[in-house]
Amino acid sequence: MAEYVLRPVGRVESTLRNRSDAPNQGDEGAPDCTITLEPGYATAGRDIAAGSELLVLTWLDRADRDVQEVRPRGNPDRPETGVFSTRSPDRPNPIGLHRVTVLDVDGTRLRVRGLEALDGTPVIDLKPPLGRVAER
Amino acid sequence: MAEYVLRPVGRVESTLRNRSDAPNQGDEGAPDCTITLEPGYATAGRDIAAGSELLVLTWLDRADRDVQEVRPRGNPDRPETGVFSTRSPDRPNPIGLHRVTVLDVDGTRLRVRGLEALDGTPVIDLKPPLGRVAER
Repeated sequence: MAEYVLRPVGRVESTLRNRSDAPNQGDEGAPDCTITLEPGYATAGRDIAAGSELLVLTWLDRADRDVQEVRPRGNPDRPETGVFSTRSPDRPNPIGLHRVTVLDVDGTRLRVRGLEALDGTPVIDLKPPLGRVAER
Repeated sequence: MAEYVLRPVGRVESTLRNRSDAPNQGDEGAPDCTITLEPGYATAGRDIAAGSELLVLTWLDRADRDVQEVRPRGNPDRPETGVFSTRSPDRPNPIGLHRVTVLDVDGTRLRVRGLEALDGTPVIDLKPPLGRVAER
């Protein structure tokens, strides 16, 4: 099957440096961080405004792509589960999906809350959140 | 900035053949369709069950990656908008994000409702939906 090339559009700047520091979900206390868009994608991001909600797609570049099953965290007695039924970062295409709040916009720098990605993580897409209607 | 290679884990089988046939959101009447996982990813998908909700990430392989601004559909008088503030398929990394209901599972074939992708569209990841807590 054909392969496809992802070109990062930006990068996360965060005080989280290692996977052992990172909460598993943004709501568990990820520090506010900054998304810096590449200058070449300034037009695509120009309508992102402070106060809005945003879905951020990242490429979890420190993940293990060969993992297909994991033991859900905090449940050592539970059986291994196929990664497509989990939010494990270790998966064949390690795409992170994060719902964040935009705190501030300064040109191509977006200050955001709720993003649990490690410093340097590539950003591959930004989208409006799935609306109620689209979530049916 | 480094590039990354996506390896599709499956493919959409749908009666939708062309972009002009496709509704813009799944809730506007996408026909039920089938996701066929590659045999090599059967383990990753083995816990997906009929009746569950699932996020499907696709690679919109017929999109235009050079588009950075679009006129929101149905609003010809509105100004062009940066694609990161829209759900346009035309965007630098054309990743589709779809919330679907799994109707039936037959080995590596998943029958789903609410997926508005064209026939042959590569599937790149499957995840549980963002929970209420994780959506804060």
